[in-house]
Amino acid sequence: MNPYWSPVVGTLVPYVPGEQPKLSNLVKLNTNEHPCGPSPRVIEAIQHELGDALRLYPDPGAERLKQAIADYYGVRTQQVFVGNGSDEVLAHAFFALFQHSRPLLFPDVTYSFYPVYCGLYGIEGRTVPLAEDFSLRVADYLQPNGGIVFPNPNAPTGRLLPLAEIEWLLQRNRDSVVLVDEAYIDFGGETAIGLVDRYPNLLVVQTLSKSRSLAGLRVGFAVGDGGLIEALERVKNSFNSYPLDRLAIAGAVAAFEDEAYFERSRQMVIDERRALVAGLEEHGFEVLPSAANFVFARHPQHEAARLAAGLREHGVIVRHFRQPRIEQYLRISVGSTQQNAALLNALELILTER
Amino acid sequence: MNPYWSPVVGTLVPYVPGEQPKLSNLVKLNTNEHPCGPSPRVIEAIQHELGDALRLYPDPGAERLKQAIADYYGVRTQQVFVGNGSDEVLAHAFFALFQHSRPLLFPDVTYSFYPVYCGLYGIEGRTVPLAEDFSLRVADYLQPNGGIVFPNPNAPTGRLLPLAEIEWLLQRNRDSVVLVDEAYIDFGGETAIGLVDRYPNLLVVQTLSKSRSLAGLRVGFAVGDGGLIEALERVKNSFNSYPLDRLAIAGAVAAFEDEAYFERSRQMVIDERRALVAGLEEHGFEVLPSAANFVFARHPQHEAARLAAGLREHGVIVRHFRQPRIEQYLRISVGSTQQNAALLNALELILTER
Repeated sequence: MNPYWSPVVGTLVPYVPGEQPKLSNLVKLNTNEHPCGPSPRVIEAIQHELGDALRLYPDPGAERLKQAIADYYGVRTQQVFVGNGSDEVLAHAFFALFQHSRPLLFPDVTYSFYPVYCGLYGIEGRTVPLAEDFSLRVADYLQPNGGIVFPNPNAPTGRLLPLAEIEWLLQRNRDSVVLVDEAYIDFGGETAIGLVDRYPNLLVVQTLSKSRSLAGLRVGFAVGDGGLIEALERVKNSFNSYPLDRLAIAGAVAAFEDEAYFERSRQMVIDERRALVAGLEEHGFEVLPSAANFVFARHPQHEAARLAAGLREHGVIVRHFRQPRIEQYLRISVGSTQQNAALLNALELILTER
Repeated sequence: MNPYWSPVVGTLVPYVPGEQPKLSNLVKLNTNEHPCGPSPRVIEAIQHELGDALRLYPDPGAERLKQAIADYYGVRTQQVFVGNGSDEVLAHAFFALFQHSRPLLFPDVTYSFYPVYCGLYGIEGRTVPLAEDFSLRVADYLQPNGGIVFPNPNAPTGRLLPLAEIEWLLQRNRDSVVLVDEAYIDFGGETAIGLVDRYPNLLVVQTLSKSRSLAGLRVGFAVGDGGLIEALERVKNSFNSYPLDRLAIAGAVAAFEDEAYFERSRQMVIDERRALVAGLEEHGFEVLPSAANFVFARHPQHEAARLAAGLREHGVIVRHFRQPRIEQYLRISVGSTQQNAALLNALELILTER
């Protein structure tokens, strides 16, 4: 190890994001981006902000954006925290709320950034196995813990946990924070934000990268009790005063203002998901029920790694995780009608070749 | 303290950034922004990137930007790290390189974010007093340490440390990292980047917020030995895969490509600084020699706090720090000809009133 490194650096196992290929002719179904662009009002708002004002620092508190989010969800701005994508928000939440003597609980099959944050901040993480069908059993989390975190819908499975189950858990787990990571909630679930006034230990994290088509702008947020938000603000203000640039603030505000576009474009994804699942099942795939903008599927007769490699040869990229329990699954983002057709056509060629 | 907080959160003393007023009619000379807007090529490049591509994640490695910086300074891309403003780059550097058993050394009068990072990451910081005239004596840093950090030119004093002094220190301090924070170097100093090939423990941090007129876009970077950069990448990839959005990457690349604009606009600041210093001295101020885009000045007959309050009443905001040794100083950003005239006019009124 380089002698100048802090000791912890040598122990880190960084997160590996999905590939962002430079070739634009690929059918990119590997990182759950929205097939539609953002609302035209987002583009207009950024245009409007784009000019000499870039010489000036942004508002460090991004109050306009907090207000837009608070208005949208019917909460107070003191219950809202914003950051540079939900990954940054999650990182600050792990630092601010999960550094305790008891272990942090999360599913064995879940967002693979969670154990990375644990490594970064010296948090003991303990995985809780999902059921055989990859559903999350909240009763399994009733054990001593310094925090609980899971995505809802879960990633990469796409399975949704009903809101009543989350509230059941919150009623029985009062001594530590329950973080619900709702990156994909808008594609088929009900947000837990409505519960934050009743549970001072609930933190809900969302992103504009998926349902708002703004992965390229880097905006995420958290909603929770003012006490939890204050912890996040203290950490953020000890790390970087201005994580959101002027253009990101302007664009994100506009994204919340254009509700009609949001509703239309997320419904389009939900409709395409239904068609994609039907198409995959016709080809013999078993597809988990998904409430997200991706599906998690396996083929009983074909190895997932080979299918992923074959798709890549046909110019279609999907995500394959070499991990226990899920190595025979592919995670396939829901694309446009054309992208999904390209995927199914490529699969048909691959499956008949063999 | 809120029972859900990680224990460290209660101990944090967050950084307080300079005010970002919502009123646009103020003469804003408090946060060292450039009086000119960014290069028109920056605006064009962002325009070009602005559209449906925002639905897609940015390149997590921001390779285009690393290449532009590497080309500009004649280094390799493996020697370049980029982040969401130089504050984020500094935060990662403190985490990755300064968590050691020996204390981190920095000046007693310096960028007030350094002790905040120490608090965040449990680093013992030890201040080394500047000389009576606020110059930095490198010999004072020849003591056991786990790292050394200082801005050059220093903030908020504006005083420059000659490059030869930095090399003298590097030759005698081989066992820990020397971080030179060059936020203001383009306004009158010579960068230490030329030394990185010879000193594997030198890390130079810069920002596009000052000399590139892009405080509103949030881009900073570090240049150093590949071993140091690898540590930063490991931490960054354990924290947030995509800190730079698509628009920031596109704009920052263009900023490095338009050398003519950069040279012209920084020369304008240097010329204005000369005029501002002369004007302040005419009004009886003592002004420290500045190599930055701000000046640090005191008036022998007038209290700095009262002057700052008086200026504010006249619509001019400057920065005043209530800290030992510098409480009688004002830090005044170099503005445009008009802004500097407004400042001097307001001062004239205040000084004759009393």
